[in-house]
Amino acid sequence: MGRMERLDQQLRFVTEIDRLKGVLRQTMLTEPPRRENSAEHSWHLAVMALTLADHAPPGTDIGRVVAMLLVHDLVEIDAGDLFAYADQAQHARQQEAESAAADRIFALLPPDQATAFRGLWDEFEERRTQEARFARGLDRLQPMLANLKVGGGTWQEHGITADQVLVNVKLIEDGSPDLGRYARDLVARAVRDGLLAPAHGGGSAA
Amino acid sequence: MGRMERLDQQLRFVTEIDRLKGVLRQTMLTEPPRRENSAEHSWHLAVMALTLADHAPPGTDIGRVVAMLLVHDLVEIDAGDLFAYADQAQHARQQEAESAAADRIFALLPPDQATAFRGLWDEFEERRTQEARFARGLDRLQPMLANLKVGGGTWQEHGITADQVLVNVKLIEDGSPDLGRYARDLVARAVRDGLLAPAHGGGSAA
Repeated sequence: MGRMERLDQQLRFVTEIDRLKGVLRQTMLTEPPRRENSAEHSWHLAVMALTLADHAPPGTDIGRVVAMLLVHDLVEIDAGDLFAYADQAQHARQQEAESAAADRIFALLPPDQATAFRGLWDEFEERRTQEARFARGLDRLQPMLANLKVGGGTWQEHGITADQVLVNVKLIEDGSPDLGRYARDLVARAVRDGLLAPAHGGGSAA
Repeated sequence: MGRMERLDQQLRFVTEIDRLKGVLRQTMLTEPPRRENSAEHSWHLAVMALTLADHAPPGTDIGRVVAMLLVHDLVEIDAGDLFAYADQAQHARQQEAESAAADRIFALLPPDQATAFRGLWDEFEERRTQEARFARGLDRLQPMLANLKVGGGTWQEHGITADQVLVNVKLIEDGSPDLGRYARDLVARAVRDGLLAPAHGGGSAA
């Protein structure tokens, strides 16, 4: 493949991924109030990785974390975003849809890059490396910060309780003890301030 | 400063930059039709840097290009986005507003990071390194791809002509000969297809 032919193929991928800007998440933004899309969410996570790098385990390759976060949601162009608190059956269906989406979307790239980008996505999904665990922790922390900012957000809208959020706190701890500690404090504060109901069946703050 | 105090300060920055999602650019998106915001634009550029890395001059540090692109528009939180084809007086006022914005926004970070992030922004603005020139080229190419996708976009809306776009093509060439060549072909194609008027005074396609 010639250089300019390769460039043509790369730019078809660049044009296709524009569609991630139209994939809406549950997270609410303010000024103006609207749902967050997956492209701006991915940007926010990548800047978080740069900013919070010193809370990653020693030796973490932050460049790899950033690259992973930039591409981790591309599959949602076909599969859409699934709310983190959806049930297991929904998560299983989503996994199948995302895998098919990865097959299609990364294959738009020249073969060597298709393999490299797909590798980043698989790594993020499998959560075996410390880079993937740190990235996943940021992905779980960001919506918690957003909910705190809007005074409850999706927690109240969907009647989410502290015990459900603490499952995500464990994933954050798994990526970074510092961020896990911060997230645990954040949940306690949200419960104390009435933004998050203490436990399932314990009465919703909604 | 303790680790958790440092983390608190970093997270205030992370929360503040959420506002970039509310800064609108001239570029129009489709599905649904709306203006692009600067956060999702920054994401798109960062993925472009990863995808088009092999068209950067040999030895370009792509991790640094990505980091630069992720933070290059943060000043717009205070200064807003200025259309690339605004006049010189507007550009001068914008430069002043962006410099003041950089002073405020990067200072939210712990001092060592404030210096590092501000350094990335200064590097992007000064366009002296090959990393900054490649990043700037991507920043000029992306709206051209968007205009092509929507059949004219801001070119038609603002009566922009090919000679004006070719000024940007030079900046793209300055960052990457391959991308410059592609952009020059793109302009010729857009003129031929009636999406872009050939020259100032030569009649607008709008």
